[in-house]
Amino acid sequence: MLNEKMVGLGTARSVIRELFEYGNQRAAVVGRENVFDFSLGNPSVPAPASVNETIVDLVQTSDPVLLHGYTSAPGAQDVRDAIAASINRRQGTSFSGKNLYMTCGAAASLTCSLNGLCLPGDEVIVIAPYFPEYQVFIEHTGAKMVLVPADTEAFQIDFAALEERITDKTKCLIVNSPNNPCGVVYSEETIQTLAQLLRTKEQAYGHPIYLISDEPYREIVFDGAFVPYLTKYYDDTLVCYSYSKSLSLPGERIGYVLVPDECADAELVFAAVAGAGRALGYVCAPSLLQRVAARCCEDTSDLSVYAENRRLLLDGFREMGIDCVTPGGTFYAFPKTLEPDDVAFAEKAKSLDLLVVPGSGFGCPGFVRVAYCVPTEQIRRSLPVFRKLADLYRK
Amino acid sequence: MLNEKMVGLGTARSVIRELFEYGNQRAAVVGRENVFDFSLGNPSVPAPASVNETIVDLVQTSDPVLLHGYTSAPGAQDVRDAIAASINRRQGTSFSGKNLYMTCGAAASLTCSLNGLCLPGDEVIVIAPYFPEYQVFIEHTGAKMVLVPADTEAFQIDFAALEERITDKTKCLIVNSPNNPCGVVYSEETIQTLAQLLRTKEQAYGHPIYLISDEPYREIVFDGAFVPYLTKYYDDTLVCYSYSKSLSLPGERIGYVLVPDECADAELVFAAVAGAGRALGYVCAPSLLQRVAARCCEDTSDLSVYAENRRLLLDGFREMGIDCVTPGGTFYAFPKTLEPDDVAFAEKAKSLDLLVVPGSGFGCPGFVRVAYCVPTEQIRRSLPVFRKLADLYRK
Repeated sequence: MLNEKMVGLGTARSVIRELFEYGNQRAAVVGRENVFDFSLGNPSVPAPASVNETIVDLVQTSDPVLLHGYTSAPGAQDVRDAIAASINRRQGTSFSGKNLYMTCGAAASLTCSLNGLCLPGDEVIVIAPYFPEYQVFIEHTGAKMVLVPADTEAFQIDFAALEERITDKTKCLIVNSPNNPCGVVYSEETIQTLAQLLRTKEQAYGHPIYLISDEPYREIVFDGAFVPYLTKYYDDTLVCYSYSKSLSLPGERIGYVLVPDECADAELVFAAVAGAGRALGYVCAPSLLQRVAARCCEDTSDLSVYAENRRLLLDGFREMGIDCVTPGGTFYAFPKTLEPDDVAFAEKAKSLDLLVVPGSGFGCPGFVRVAYCVPTEQIRRSLPVFRKLADLYRK
Repeated sequence: MLNEKMVGLGTARSVIRELFEYGNQRAAVVGRENVFDFSLGNPSVPAPASVNETIVDLVQTSDPVLLHGYTSAPGAQDVRDAIAASINRRQGTSFSGKNLYMTCGAAASLTCSLNGLCLPGDEVIVIAPYFPEYQVFIEHTGAKMVLVPADTEAFQIDFAALEERITDKTKCLIVNSPNNPCGVVYSEETIQTLAQLLRTKEQAYGHPIYLISDEPYREIVFDGAFVPYLTKYYDDTLVCYSYSKSLSLPGERIGYVLVPDECADAELVFAAVAGAGRALGYVCAPSLLQRVAARCCEDTSDLSVYAENRRLLLDGFREMGIDCVTPGGTFYAFPKTLEPDDVAFAEKAKSLDLLVVPGSGFGCPGFVRVAYCVPTEQIRRSLPVFRKLADLYRK
């Protein structure tokens, strides 16, 4: 009688959440310091000081009726203008506020974009490894998720596999670079090849194929890694952004969808995103946080912690003979498991109170995700445990 | 190619928003003080001081990683417990935190509830006059809205008309008391009769009929009006609440869905609401505002302003011979128009720079909505203009 699909979604605990809860239970038994929980992608570094300073300043100096009042549905105009100007300064683009639709974070950016674009029967292409909620978001629109297997060497794109999967029904393709779960950044060459392929297919099928760039990790990159700005390579791009990771505000739910003027049917696409926001019950993005995002959008939390964690972990894996692609960004590492069955590997790790997430859930078996957004001392103390795990396979 | 329905929703400007924009344009021409804009239901009274004090205190004394971090999907446990305890204190109920699912405001409460409950082909009953976004929310689920015409005398419920419309396909019924747009509070007798009718129909059809109580105006009542708490009259009730109006925080998007233990399939219903939240992209309600709601949930903004506005307006209408039901709550009055065509009446008002919303948009022609959440001096200065309008019909 109820919507069983929704019951299922609300009842099923994600593997990640399950692991996290297990970690809490174990912590009660063996002590927090003896559980090495790498399950959750929850930023461990506080928001930059500017965030809380801005909140206090806004609260103390703004008209409260305006500060906490409805903004227009796509967001406060000054907020949209400020964020567009900031993107332009950093990316050399020429957006204006009217290209931006403020949202309640990346998940909302994706659901508004997908519900605006998709009709039942459409296909949405996703490239493994991928964030598993994509499937939930896509299926709610009535569209079908089409998965491109991972390039498990470089974690770029297997273009032959992608090309095979583009059909007349392909409405859009989601890319996520820097990538959750593998941390890899798509190279400029990858983006150029992707753009060329999509343009060719658009011509062949005679309709746009939208590229959705889900990029909450854009700011979290290491060694000066270059993250191409996709609208500059491919016109029919929607950018889905969130401040959750860059400003360590995942609970506050603030982000945006950017629809460039160059995008096919740009005005209609923008209207469709806004219409979807309306139908899903998003009246406006949280008003105080909109203003915080506008003022703090060029700040980030202290990324040096993630850089240090990454270095320690990668060096450790190398010494232990654990293969791991070098993550150019995010706070995830995605080492190859020491047996083909990643679930069994993660279980073995769990028996040592080392909590890592099997790659299968991200469409990429044979790997595990290690979310290193944790205190650096946890990384240090975990290395002997990773070694113990590796040794179990070498007896 | 795009989802045309979403394009339509994003392109169509609501009558209310259209009026508001017109008001801004007229203000530029004739001066802000000469435009009497009663179009928007945007609280005019600031949030109580406790809200901003709480924000500053939380920001200055909490661990920022926790304060701004993800909460669990249904909300932070301590927040849910505190709000449940507050409802229990005031309503004599016995809820616990696990009955509450925190949301991004009333619209999200409704979309999560409706998407959780409804399947395509279901019917959702709505009683006129009604908030027009209900139709958008209902149709997104694939269900059909079934409208019960207004009781234009007392603005309670026309039970004969309601009974005719309950069928085997009726999944739920939405009530909104105190009501937007008419301000009326359903009496205890109305609620008792409604509960009895629904129980009878549940038995007849052999399945639950859920009652969704959309009650963002619960706290905004006058002359000690009694607003029955619906879970005490009918087990299969979901309460959709928002702090937008009571705490003057409409832009911040914070509210909840309450699913009582007594509700049929309570655990599955709760899971369905949570599952819908997940599919729609609501990861959690904004974390800072969850804490603000928990601490300030027994406060309200200064309601005496609305009480005074209401008194002035009702007295004025009475003197002018304009019929108007006495609104027990909200900040809306819903006078009868002086000609049958409410749209023509609102146009005539507009020609005097008096902006009121035709009742037709709320499923109730022959009336207009006057949103009196404005400065009291605007009410005072508008009375001669309302009189001028009335006089146009008496020449």
